[in-house]
Amino acid sequence: MESNSSQVRPTLEWPQKAWNLLAGVRSQSPLIQCITNFVSMDLMANTLLSAGASPAMLHCIEEIPDFTPHAHAVCINIGTLSPSWLPAMKAAAELCSKLGKPWVLDPVAAGASSFRLKACMELVEMKPTVIRGNGSEIVALSKASTGLTKGVDSILESTDAVEAAKLLAQASGAIVAVSGAVDIVTDGKQVIGARNGVAMLQKITATGCSVTALIAAFVAVDKSSALEAVVSALSIFGVAAELGMKMANGPASLRMHLIDSLHGLDEAAVLSHVNIGSLP
Amino acid sequence: MESNSSQVRPTLEWPQKAWNLLAGVRSQSPLIQCITNFVSMDLMANTLLSAGASPAMLHCIEEIPDFTPHAHAVCINIGTLSPSWLPAMKAAAELCSKLGKPWVLDPVAAGASSFRLKACMELVEMKPTVIRGNGSEIVALSKASTGLTKGVDSILESTDAVEAAKLLAQASGAIVAVSGAVDIVTDGKQVIGARNGVAMLQKITATGCSVTALIAAFVAVDKSSALEAVVSALSIFGVAAELGMKMANGPASLRMHLIDSLHGLDEAAVLSHVNIGSLP
Amino acid sequence: MESNSSQVRPTLEWPQKAWNLLAGVRSQSPLIQCITNFVSMDLMANTLLSAGASPAMLHCIEEIPDFTPHAHAVCINIGTLSPSWLPAMKAAAELCSKLGKPWVLDPVAAGASSFRLKACMELVEMKPTVIRGNGSEIVALSKASTGLTKGVDSILESTDAVEAAKLLAQASGAIVAVSGAVDIVTDGKQVIGARNGVAMLQKITATGCSVTALIAAFVAVDKSSALEAVVSALSIFGVAAELGMKMANGPASLRMHLIDSLHGLDEAAVLSHVNIGSLP
Repeated sequence: MESNSSQVRPTLEWPQKAWNLLAGVRSQSPLIQCITNFVSMDLMANTLLSAGASPAMLHCIEEIPDFTPHAHAVCINIGTLSPSWLPAMKAAAELCSKLGKPWVLDPVAAGASSFRLKACMELVEMKPTVIRGNGSEIVALSKASTGLTKGVDSILESTDAVEAAKLLAQASGAIVAVSGAVDIVTDGKQVIGARNGVAMLQKITATGCSVTALIAAFVAVDKSSALEAVVSALSIFGVAAELGMKMANGPASLRMHLIDSLHGLDEAAVLSHVNIGSLP
Repeated sequence: MESNSSQVRPTLEWPQKAWNLLAGVRSQSPLIQCITNFVSMDLMANTLLSAGASPAMLHCIEEIPDFTPHAHAVCINIGTLSPSWLPAMKAAAELCSKLGKPWVLDPVAAGASSFRLKACMELVEMKPTVIRGNGSEIVALSKASTGLTKGVDSILESTDAVEAAKLLAQASGAIVAVSGAVDIVTDGKQVIGARNGVAMLQKITATGCSVTALIAAFVAVDKSSALEAVVSALSIFGVAAELGMKMANGPASLRMHLIDSLHGLDEAAVLSHVNIGSLP
Repeated sequence: MESNSSQVRPTLEWPQKAWNLLAGVRSQSPLIQCITNFVSMDLMANTLLSAGASPAMLHCIEEIPDFTPHAHAVCINIGTLSPSWLPAMKAAAELCSKLGKPWVLDPVAAGASSFRLKACMELVEMKPTVIRGNGSEIVALSKASTGLTKGVDSILESTDAVEAAKLLAQASGAIVAVSGAVDIVTDGKQVIGARNGVAMLQKITATGCSVTALIAAFVAVDKSSALEAVVSALSIFGVAAELGMKMANGPASLRMHLIDSLHGLDEAAVLSHVNIGSLP
């Protein structure tokens, strides 16, 4: 598998790329506006802070014309969606597209209801830079179909969603990432696998939401390649989880050690742990 | 006290019952829809995940017809109530009743305002399977009266609320649980005491809300006896708190160790720690 | 610097004052109503609980006439402001002013949008007992001007905002506190510096919001001098952070140890750590 990576980029480049982008987030401290669900706000803000970014949880449509132009990227997450929040999400997405500013969509439980799926499809049409979901969510978006999900948990492995991800990327123009035992990232042509992370992340709410916000921070500091930024953000979060797992006794201590590790990650740890390669 | 337990069920059965239900939650991973307050969403979702259930924090009325039929139980909590959230709570409750699906009500600070009390009374009329509150909340509901509370904290011990709990159970048809130094559970006739837990839980926000959600998960996997499911859920949460307390230095580390312990609980720990018995 | 402290009060008095107020919060357990942003609710409630206060996160305008009169102080925080929340904030503020009840304003990201700045200015006109913000926020309020902020993070040190704080205190009648490496507190005439705390607090979301709520609890138990209560609350939170930092490996473990330390603080630790003095 690793031997195929050279088709995309030399294997050795990925860990250095990931480190360079984390260092960029730390030095530039990009301002990331998050319009996100109630469950994830705390962990998402702390994830961004621990990575060196500056989070702003602003969801109010009245503020978007003043505020969004100052953000370096926007993260839109539909977790606890209600009709009153959707116009602000669309206004922020539209402004980002107009200003050439990156924005990232997290289509939480996209297939859980027709209301939710419709909202997602409308947002996808507004040209997100990146879409990150689990297998069920990406398949639901790709097929524009409900019923492929169990609440917010995926019933599909990420690797079952590769074709759906490629189709969604081609149709939307977004980089599409599918979280799972291996995180899959595709621009519709090449498919990269990011193999860092631990299974227990699934037992902590909002870790998926938080890595989407981290993707926004990475995309904000690497506008030349959103694909590389997405892969790097997923890997860095996964490495922090692996290091955190060594000290954890369960999901709650993993959550704490994950954030501490993300804050403390140094170049040596990143270079020795990042595990990225292209997939066939 | 323990010798009286035989009136209800053999003392030895309770620990095994509690373990069997936890094992059932882990193996069945019931989907629990939570319409809950903003403060508790994070800890509630993590409590459900650490116990093996699948939480979904969906509060939007537009989604209830699509989503609620797939949930295995629903948890409704009025903590940060506002008028715009109440219709969704009622719609979910009504759908549960129609479909024979269990739902659990947490009447946070029921007596704190007439608006809140009225909302609670309307929900109680919609036939919750279980109502769990602290002493002040249960007395407020039972007497349909405000002024018996200090914010969200109880000014009554659970044991002061036994008669109110029995009356409320008889009037509503719900299993009624009262949290306190001893957790009280009644179906209006028998009264069971669950003696696990630690006092410091009161210094952690949303632990009461979270145990209500855990009750929903237990009720979802034991539809034959909601009473037993409620008692078991309270005990399991209490045992996790006791084990967590051994490693804690204060409320924040207890919160972490509690969740870790709930995730890691094994049969031996449950059988040796569960302390349940009927009350006179 | 310390030698100047005698102009305001003997240096030795401050640590004892801070301890006495913490002891007062623990013994009186004031009921603190918080109308706050979604991000901070969890940490704010846990901060209040660990300090011995009784938090109530109620934001619904329908409940304010019933509930707010029972609160001992109110904390109003505009973090995730939307138009629908503002009337309740104003109703609570107005009721506090009418009843002579202390209330504290946290003007999060005051300069981030004209909507937000206008809301803040309207709240400032309703006579808060205390206003606590970072340097950028206090300067924005003092100059009634947007654009002086980067999201929720300050681009100014607290010491750059001393004159703005004094002007704001004089214009509003509030005690004004500016968080930073040194926390500044002024009544418009004297300026006190509270030097406890650690830099890593800036890497944890909602610590500023939470210390504002702690200020509300301290003001609730010392109505004779809001200035002293504010300085004491900031110091106590800072001392808890310093003690927590000794056990922390990063922002997430600091957050945990901070709350544990706040809960466990004893008189000896307070007396030996509090570092308060007047500023020139």
